[in-house]
Amino acid sequence: MQRVAERVSRAIQLPTTAGDVRRVLSAALASNDFWHIVSLADRPFNQVAETLKQLEAEGWVAFSDGEVHLTQAGRERCRAENVQPRQLHRCSACEGRSISLAAFADVLRRFETLAADRPKPILDYDQAYVTPETTISRVAIMADRGDLVGKRLLVLGDDDLVGLAAALTGLPQRVVVIEVDERLTTFMAELSRREGLGLEVVRHDLRDPLPGDLVGQCDTFCTDPPEAIQGLELFIARGLSSLAGPGCAGYFGMTLVESSLWKWRELQRLLVQKYRVVITDIIDDFSHYMNWGYLLQTVRADLGPAQVPPARVWYTSSLYRVEALADFERPSSTVEVDERLYLDSESLVWTRRNSHAAGA
Amino acid sequence: MQRVAERVSRAIQLPTTAGDVRRVLSAALASNDFWHIVSLADRPFNQVAETLKQLEAEGWVAFSDGEVHLTQAGRERCRAENVQPRQLHRCSACEGRSISLAAFADVLRRFETLAADRPKPILDYDQAYVTPETTISRVAIMADRGDLVGKRLLVLGDDDLVGLAAALTGLPQRVVVIEVDERLTTFMAELSRREGLGLEVVRHDLRDPLPGDLVGQCDTFCTDPPEAIQGLELFIARGLSSLAGPGCAGYFGMTLVESSLWKWRELQRLLVQKYRVVITDIIDDFSHYMNWGYLLQTVRADLGPAQVPPARVWYTSSLYRVEALADFERPSSTVEVDERLYLDSESLVWTRRNSHAAGA
Repeated sequence: MQRVAERVSRAIQLPTTAGDVRRVLSAALASNDFWHIVSLADRPFNQVAETLKQLEAEGWVAFSDGEVHLTQAGRERCRAENVQPRQLHRCSACEGRSISLAAFADVLRRFETLAADRPKPILDYDQAYVTPETTISRVAIMADRGDLVGKRLLVLGDDDLVGLAAALTGLPQRVVVIEVDERLTTFMAELSRREGLGLEVVRHDLRDPLPGDLVGQCDTFCTDPPEAIQGLELFIARGLSSLAGPGCAGYFGMTLVESSLWKWRELQRLLVQKYRVVITDIIDDFSHYMNWGYLLQTVRADLGPAQVPPARVWYTSSLYRVEALADFERPSSTVEVDERLYLDSESLVWTRRNSHAAGA
Repeated sequence: MQRVAERVSRAIQLPTTAGDVRRVLSAALASNDFWHIVSLADRPFNQVAETLKQLEAEGWVAFSDGEVHLTQAGRERCRAENVQPRQLHRCSACEGRSISLAAFADVLRRFETLAADRPKPILDYDQAYVTPETTISRVAIMADRGDLVGKRLLVLGDDDLVGLAAALTGLPQRVVVIEVDERLTTFMAELSRREGLGLEVVRHDLRDPLPGDLVGQCDTFCTDPPEAIQGLELFIARGLSSLAGPGCAGYFGMTLVESSLWKWRELQRLLVQKYRVVITDIIDDFSHYMNWGYLLQTVRADLGPAQVPPARVWYTSSLYRVEALADFERPSSTVEVDERLYLDSESLVWTRRNSHAAGA
């Protein structure tokens, strides 16, 4: 295990322990589906992929018919080291989100109808949208936590159409969506006009500071940020700068597919130290992403099973909720940004973009 | 609102904002039951109680027949300030825990039978145990996250009988329970012997360092710590010192009833800065506590509705999961402890023990 871990560490430049290798083996004992293994391992895509490659080199796993199989040697090793198949015990009623959609059944139905013609995800903006149940669950949890009814909501970047769903409930006092993709702003603005939803749609690039008339004017923000640490921090800082003050809350997603637990901890330090908010919730696998068209063109091409399109939802994110305390200070608008906004070594697209890593 | 907030701040020595007062009003718009209002407000008991007292002085709420009622003036004020009734949208299937007990139905049944004669909670050890569904859900989530099957589990302080439930599943490699209350150690040891569960029960006071043969010998720990920040840190540090290394995980509960979000943030800073673990999950209201006998003798006596025993579950806690990364270092065993271990100004029993606060 240790040798495999060291090889993976070197190849992907991310510290990898024997425990990480065990997690991948545990996932591979539970499924032959590559994408499901990534999902079950709770480790970054690049780490899981490289670990499987190294395990194949060791003769513990074999790739055949686009699937991942433990070899006899691999199974014996798992037995010897007491690695057990990963098991899940998620509630099927709420898909593990903890939230009931019972009060939002009509909103969900109407949302599905209205969203049917939504623009398809494109790579330029790092897009991939969530299932309709996820979008409505985000609205439902904001309602549950007292952050939606009668409140001013800002959605930063919204290919998930959370702003549309929130407006459909009629519960918030105000809903503003900031989005850079003109296809989406046009789509949302037209729907809002046609349906009389009062949704405010602002076309804006979040690399630029928040429009002045939104700073400090919101009670709640919601965003699904890019996961390179710079993009993550930028989107959250922009969200925080919209909040009116203590008691206001922010919601955002973070995956284990494109973020290591190192990055999670780094973000948590930023939240509680630098931005002085408190984390009130982290709900695992809250958001389920619909599979998107450009996936296979962007991930590493040297692994057979990674070239078979995923058959079901595999990309998920945890939902964070943070709350501002009485010592809250709005972040300044000057955040340094560069091309690393959407890309770091934990990004799905990293290996293809960095051939030296692919060849390691 | 601001005036009420300032009076509450002074009386309970906890910074209280207009937003906190709004949360209490929002809860009081949704329920007349004092304990339910505490639960819905997501603010410390002492803060909610003092806020209601000040709101009564303002003429916005009235206490009658042991209930809390918004007055006409209070309702008008809520309308004017756009305070809406708190609404909940929790999944009824999992009670908002996100976890399915389907695979543990037999374990739950057996646990309920075996736990029927458990010792009753006593104040000396700050006891109050959770519902059987909560105990089994803690076991189920450890199984779900890969922290139970084939693993070595340590439970620190266990009037909830998590160790017993874990042993009943037959899934862990080893289960050790540390408990100071001889009634509980005797009860658990006898059950384990009679049922052949192999549960290891150690009578030990956690103010003293962990027994040497447990240091670094566990994969997972679980604890329901006292909530004064010293006790909280002590129990978690003891748990962390039991972990073998990277990839190991800890589970613990933390309430909003006896801990403000200030204390939450302070703990989060300790976790990610001092102890260098990452927080992977925070699940709201995961643990539901059975009402305990000594409650009314310990809380403030100057508030009518707080002298009516709670009719249903009102005291809940969030479940935290933390994970050790590759730079994990076991905490040293020397932690300073004194009488503040079980008591701070956010404790349920604070007001009675500190008459100057009660008279403020």
